[in-house]
Amino acid sequence: MENIIELTRGVPPTKSFAVDKLSICAHDALAGYPDKILQYSQSFGFLPLRESLAEIYLANKDQIIIGTGSLQVLDHLLRSFPTGTLRVGFEEPTYDRTITQLKRVQASLLPCPLKLEGVDLSALRKNLEEGKKVDFFYVISDFQNPTGSVMPLEKRHELVALAREHHFYIIEDLPYRNLRYNGQSLPSCYELAPELTCMMSSFSKLIAPGLRVGFMILPKELVHRTAKVAEDTYINPSYLDQALVYEFCCRGWLEEHLVFLKELYSHRRDVMADAMDRHLTGLCDWKRPDGGFFIGSFVKQSVQADVLMQHALKHGLKLTDGRGFYTQGGDQFVRLPFCALEDEQIEIGIARFAETLKTYPG
Amino acid sequence: MENIIELTRGVPPTKSFAVDKLSICAHDALAGYPDKILQYSQSFGFLPLRESLAEIYLANKDQIIIGTGSLQVLDHLLRSFPTGTLRVGFEEPTYDRTITQLKRVQASLLPCPLKLEGVDLSALRKNLEEGKKVDFFYVISDFQNPTGSVMPLEKRHELVALAREHHFYIIEDLPYRNLRYNGQSLPSCYELAPELTCMMSSFSKLIAPGLRVGFMILPKELVHRTAKVAEDTYINPSYLDQALVYEFCCRGWLEEHLVFLKELYSHRRDVMADAMDRHLTGLCDWKRPDGGFFIGSFVKQSVQADVLMQHALKHGLKLTDGRGFYTQGGDQFVRLPFCALEDEQIEIGIARFAETLKTYPG
Repeated sequence: MENIIELTRGVPPTKSFAVDKLSICAHDALAGYPDKILQYSQSFGFLPLRESLAEIYLANKDQIIIGTGSLQVLDHLLRSFPTGTLRVGFEEPTYDRTITQLKRVQASLLPCPLKLEGVDLSALRKNLEEGKKVDFFYVISDFQNPTGSVMPLEKRHELVALAREHHFYIIEDLPYRNLRYNGQSLPSCYELAPELTCMMSSFSKLIAPGLRVGFMILPKELVHRTAKVAEDTYINPSYLDQALVYEFCCRGWLEEHLVFLKELYSHRRDVMADAMDRHLTGLCDWKRPDGGFFIGSFVKQSVQADVLMQHALKHGLKLTDGRGFYTQGGDQFVRLPFCALEDEQIEIGIARFAETLKTYPG
Repeated sequence: MENIIELTRGVPPTKSFAVDKLSICAHDALAGYPDKILQYSQSFGFLPLRESLAEIYLANKDQIIIGTGSLQVLDHLLRSFPTGTLRVGFEEPTYDRTITQLKRVQASLLPCPLKLEGVDLSALRKNLEEGKKVDFFYVISDFQNPTGSVMPLEKRHELVALAREHHFYIIEDLPYRNLRYNGQSLPSCYELAPELTCMMSSFSKLIAPGLRVGFMILPKELVHRTAKVAEDTYINPSYLDQALVYEFCCRGWLEEHLVFLKELYSHRRDVMADAMDRHLTGLCDWKRPDGGFFIGSFVKQSVQADVLMQHALKHGLKLTDGRGFYTQGGDQFVRLPFCALEDEQIEIGIARFAETLKTYPG
């Protein structure tokens, strides 16, 4: 089949980049303070952007580390502990790259199942009650990657209470929090318990991923060890990119741009969810998300991920392997990103997905 | 004492940055191919710059990885092996950040003493003859950091022959190679044995460190594992910075800029070496370097690094702890960078260093 539709990666569409504005930002940053951005500097990141973030998040600038994307800062944090010593809980399914990073530092993994109604923390609770050490619990509370779900308020309170009682840290990954298309924001774990939370976020989904500007706000006792790993890794991250983001935010362009992005993405979310209502009812379980980039779908019939992907390709559809978001299993799970595709592609993609399931062999 | 002179870090002076040209590069890159630099992309780095490097170094573009500075790519390479399994030889003294990275991956360290007449490879040879595995030998062949020395041709041949016979790789770090102020370039280990050499270099000293653009050319069998670590760490490095470097090079501005830099630095080298001739004869051993940023000096009298640094501060001089460049010892070694300081500061700094030594307590 010609024109394969790719329902795979969760990347912003190129047309969403405010190129002309970024060009002005680059010019003004280089003209205004070249000495600050072209020289070696602190591993913590560009100070003015850290100060802006400190204001927005009511944090201490000295507890903010900006890196080459937030994933990199997570890696610094994990590497600040000896290999093989960490025990880390997380929702399952979760962001595949986080699982990869956890495996890389040989962390013991403690997955807690995430279904449409929210994460089930009983495995975490059981471990803690058995006296097992847990160092971190990683959670994407808003418009989760890959499911699109929002962590219910009572789950946030439950997790924070557990963290408080059993002395572990929450790593809260919030790259989609500002992309809410309807409904009210819930307090983040970071807002509920800043002293226990490593809150990470990024400008990748808000301005442009290629700039690789992400950050983490860390509890005091974790900041310096993390910044030391950053320094030993690259001395400092690129300050030019961070200065572009800073200039973009300073001018009020981020707020303006968010209005545009929310309109763009909420429309695409509706196109996909409507198409799913028409084509996938009875075939999958899913929930229309209130924000973010993804609709997570759980296939009702029993499928094998390899076969499903192969079969989808025959129908002109490329899918992501659901197993990447799980430590084991995941064959029934398909992440459907609506962010990058035009309406017609979304429509065709979902119809093809339905055809794939209806004609699934065996 | 007022106005402390800092003879510490080897950073380019801010005035050496071609700000206006870099601004044009940023504008043209963003206007010309925003989709290429603002989107997520390959962990290998910006393809056009990799293609340019492939031409310059007669390499295959698929064997070139560009990262957030070359140090970061070294880290990717080292991390592509299980923690605690590598055995790595190197000149001692060597670049302190490399020692830190080697320790971080729990490599077994095999230092080979580097004196004014060149590296003594007998410790390496002995290990190899005893059948001990060596995975890598790290060397800064041109204008070494911290000594400023150039590896003699026969040593290059000796190292390459050992690598060939005993199947280890050379990691050749060449950030200063293009900053030769007199004399003829020797063939690099990479040129002598590209199939055995991981050649790393950077634009930090040639254009601007803040852009964080460094690269490594790797033997085929090491490329993909290294790029995978890069991807798992940050998906991709900043492409905007790499595009700036690409545009800068395309326009022929790098060659122009090198002429300017060589004039700037060779003058400073002379100012420092002349001052050393006047003030330090009899107190230190050193050699006037043919390029780079540093003059490495070996203090003749017995000193203790802590005391020396403290005592220097009393004379208005900040020195780098020589022990950082060694796995053990290093008290007698002082790295003197001439790159960042104005003539007068260099003069005063060297005079103060001489005073520090002459009045060294005990």
